[in-house]
Amino acid sequence: MKFFEGADTKIFALGGLGEVGKNMYCVMHGNEIVITDAGIIFPQGELMGIDYVIPDFTFLKKNENKIKGLFITHGHEDHIGGIPFLLTQVNIPVIYAPNQAVGLIRKKLDERNIQYKNLYVYNEDTVVKFKNISVEFFRTTHSIPDSHGMCIHTPNGNIVTTGDFKFDLTPIGPMSNLYKMAKIGKEGVALLMSDSTNALNEGFSISESKVDEALKEVFIKHKDSRIIIATFASNIYRLKHIVDTCKKMGRKIATFGRSMENNLEISIEGGYIKNKEIFVTPEEANQLPPSEVCLLCTGSQGEPLAALSRIANGSHKQIKLHSDDIVIFSSSAIPGNAVSISRTINKLYLKGVKVYTNTSLSDIHTSGHGNKEELKLMMRLINPKYFMPFHGEYRMLKAHADIAVECGIPRENTFILGNGDVLSLYKGKITRSGFVQAGDVYVDGNRIGDVSNAVMKDRKIMANDGIVVVIANVDTTNAKLLTNPNITTRGFVQVNENLDMIKELEEIAKKAINAKLTKDINYTEIKNQIIDDLSTHIFDTTGRKPIILPVIMNVKRETNN
Amino acid sequence: MKFFEGADTKIFALGGLGEVGKNMYCVMHGNEIVITDAGIIFPQGELMGIDYVIPDFTFLKKNENKIKGLFITHGHEDHIGGIPFLLTQVNIPVIYAPNQAVGLIRKKLDERNIQYKNLYVYNEDTVVKFKNISVEFFRTTHSIPDSHGMCIHTPNGNIVTTGDFKFDLTPIGPMSNLYKMAKIGKEGVALLMSDSTNALNEGFSISESKVDEALKEVFIKHKDSRIIIATFASNIYRLKHIVDTCKKMGRKIATFGRSMENNLEISIEGGYIKNKEIFVTPEEANQLPPSEVCLLCTGSQGEPLAALSRIANGSHKQIKLHSDDIVIFSSSAIPGNAVSISRTINKLYLKGVKVYTNTSLSDIHTSGHGNKEELKLMMRLINPKYFMPFHGEYRMLKAHADIAVECGIPRENTFILGNGDVLSLYKGKITRSGFVQAGDVYVDGNRIGDVSNAVMKDRKIMANDGIVVVIANVDTTNAKLLTNPNITTRGFVQVNENLDMIKELEEIAKKAINAKLTKDINYTEIKNQIIDDLSTHIFDTTGRKPIILPVIMNVKRETNN
Repeated sequence: MKFFEGADTKIFALGGLGEVGKNMYCVMHGNEIVITDAGIIFPQGELMGIDYVIPDFTFLKKNENKIKGLFITHGHEDHIGGIPFLLTQVNIPVIYAPNQAVGLIRKKLDERNIQYKNLYVYNEDTVVKFKNISVEFFRTTHSIPDSHGMCIHTPNGNIVTTGDFKFDLTPIGPMSNLYKMAKIGKEGVALLMSDSTNALNEGFSISESKVDEALKEVFIKHKDSRIIIATFASNIYRLKHIVDTCKKMGRKIATFGRSMENNLEISIEGGYIKNKEIFVTPEEANQLPPSEVCLLCTGSQGEPLAALSRIANGSHKQIKLHSDDIVIFSSSAIPGNAVSISRTINKLYLKGVKVYTNTSLSDIHTSGHGNKEELKLMMRLINPKYFMPFHGEYRMLKAHADIAVECGIPRENTFILGNGDVLSLYKGKITRSGFVQAGDVYVDGNRIGDVSNAVMKDRKIMANDGIVVVIANVDTTNAKLLTNPNITTRGFVQVNENLDMIKELEEIAKKAINAKLTKDINYTEIKNQIIDDLSTHIFDTTGRKPIILPVIMNVKRETNN
Repeated sequence: MKFFEGADTKIFALGGLGEVGKNMYCVMHGNEIVITDAGIIFPQGELMGIDYVIPDFTFLKKNENKIKGLFITHGHEDHIGGIPFLLTQVNIPVIYAPNQAVGLIRKKLDERNIQYKNLYVYNEDTVVKFKNISVEFFRTTHSIPDSHGMCIHTPNGNIVTTGDFKFDLTPIGPMSNLYKMAKIGKEGVALLMSDSTNALNEGFSISESKVDEALKEVFIKHKDSRIIIATFASNIYRLKHIVDTCKKMGRKIATFGRSMENNLEISIEGGYIKNKEIFVTPEEANQLPPSEVCLLCTGSQGEPLAALSRIANGSHKQIKLHSDDIVIFSSSAIPGNAVSISRTINKLYLKGVKVYTNTSLSDIHTSGHGNKEELKLMMRLINPKYFMPFHGEYRMLKAHADIAVECGIPRENTFILGNGDVLSLYKGKITRSGFVQAGDVYVDGNRIGDVSNAVMKDRKIMANDGIVVVIANVDTTNAKLLTNPNITTRGFVQVNENLDMIKELEEIAKKAINAKLTKDINYTEIKNQIIDDLSTHIFDTTGRKPIILPVIMNVKRETNN
């Protein structure tokens, strides 16, 4: 694809389409690229050992000189988590983010020892102007303070991206700026890109204030018990009203889990959460009567190493459960976590603890993303000519496009795209226009992109059936096997109870090698024979398909593997 | 624990407590053991490569001469799946099962070439009498025909086990036998063991007839489209009304998936499903207009190899999707499958297909297990003195015990047990009484129990971080390393892009070996040094913790690994 200097404006995603996570959207006009968000996504099920998935930054690396700035909508991991990786690969001249997000980004960069000077706070009055593109902001409601949508002005028309939002009409924090959205809408918007996370959900989402009431009722009902609450550390408004409720009810709070502590610290620094004095250490909490304690912890998804899981296990150093404790999951299950959550709840029940979840008490959690009616309200306020759903799996994008059509946007003016697909906006008219490089890059440990699909495939095979290593020492000069082949396995069978089987494998490997061993040694041929013979035998006798890894060593010459 | 000949009656589970699956319950009086069900459970998340988990049969093996018979409540895998494994390990003199289950068990035994002669059909009139124990049956409603509960008469009192049940008052098949339950209750029951699967769900479950109506509406709404339905192959009543609906609406059915075909075949043979003539081959279905076709397939859980997933992928040999196809998931998500189901649905949406699930249309599926009000009805009909919830995770058992208390059973008369815990019934009074051996046995491929926890642990490490094999040839006579150590990895890093790292590992291994290599060679010491040095270096540079597998070979003496 060729990018013309000048005439049209390109819009594309490097992440966030067909997935809930790794959001990264670009607007490019001539020599200017403006990026919105740089998120990660946590790997699901099959990506074994991968810590995060980040966008492929190749396009940005190649067009580094055009990048004007990165604009962050809010401080959640799926919008800011990729920043450390981006900054080590691509020169980003400036990052603008709202106040709370700036705190979280600074923490993140500090933890990785990344020095970055050009991180600025924006607010609703900020307008950032480049030669062709300018950006302004409007306040939205979400589960973290300071969430914003943006209006990106280009010579070809205005582009609005919502970031993550709901319309909470009785919010814990400030209201969405309905006026500014309506005003932007009135002035004319070519393209709206809007949050599709809950596009499949009917109606209007529950207000955070309702959750506040439900939580308060649980506090009143169990005023003599110690209360343990697991929630998303990223849900700052939830943390805020838990803190406020504890203040009112005379409870001290001890916190558990690094992300919980980080988020609280930054929210208290930023003034979003008050009553700092009610926080105590776990040791202090253990000295107080149960009726005066609330433990606030991570682990609402049953993550095995999180605080709540260790408390449930009985393996937490500081907190031991009592049978009259109350545990509240003020959270929902992220798809894929149902089994680990169940396991944690069962362990809590085993200890005799009373557990509240959002299936037992529906108002105990609400999403930060708007349902269908809220998405329609955004559509009506912004009143765009074209619509592109973002931030969602394919079926969510599809449902959101249907909502746009219901709101009067012609079907042909809606674009359901994948990452890398490019739209071209020219004089207020949008057409599809090729694609740029986009994809998933895996981060495993502290290294980026060195785990390929082949490596992932090996991990999967070993996860299911293990590995059988066959080592043979050969003397190539005399075409002779020097000792019996050595068979070593991991994750295959309990070896000490299956010595006969290992002996058999040794014999089969020996035959395979002798059959193919000639003076003019062909290592590949010998290895293939070993793999064929052993895998056939192993599958026939055990029904398993481990990796067969033959290593042929020639002590006198060099080893071949 | 000691079993007294004579006086008391023991009751215990070898599977089914603290889990939904591998049901196996035993009643033992003197020299007589009567077993109810022999199920499997499918492994969840962390049990990598394991195909099934079965109960530990050690107790039964040791007390083989006391076993009088195995009684099957119904033909689902979590109640009959363990039979082939049980029969190869333990002599079971006779198996009694209801008609539909007998068909499924026969098929299962045939597939594994197991000859077993003593498999008999029981019905509601059957009474099986041993010296001390006798067993009679009552019809329940579940998602498979011929489900039964049992009353086990012992000299110390009567024990009722419900099997799986709901109270469907407008069932597709026959009604539960309310009269017989009430009569058994009237005659006096010492202990009730009852199905806890849905003990956390309020109210009364949806009738299968409601599902019938909902499905019919979808058929009417989309009468010009091809309809593809994914459902549980084990839900025979669902299959029945899909077949009946197709018959009425003039559609032919093609089936996909082995379990679907087996269940349909046996249900047609048994007369549970009629209209055999409307089944066609996939090729015949492809010749018909879409309005005359229904495809009935497995894959409602997004299983990657199931028919629906391959259809959604476009990799199915016979079926290609059209954009006006309708896909119905007449099923619910089993915990742990949400991600794979989502993936399948997204792929279907990508093909432009309209998808119905039980979140978009709630009456499109109902469970075969009763909710709270139904559990209370069972409790009131059977009217037991003692209660033991079974068939459920711990929190379900707990909720079910609470229901019993609501129905007037004293808390101290309810027993929430684990597998292997024993109850002793003596002259109508029940106390806890030690335990018998119970646990999980893994089946991987066609081998039982040779995958230990150590093997599972290795699989898990390799799944996350791979393996690094270090091979060193030494000459022990001269305490000399013969060549550079060979480093081979799988599932660790992309090797060809990380040759420098592999070179470094080679150097570190070489140093480690040379440091510890003496004429009086200590293999363990050398290996530990390699493991220590390499794992430290690898963790510091990559953040990963692969298995380090050193193999030291002495070409002149024997290999040590």
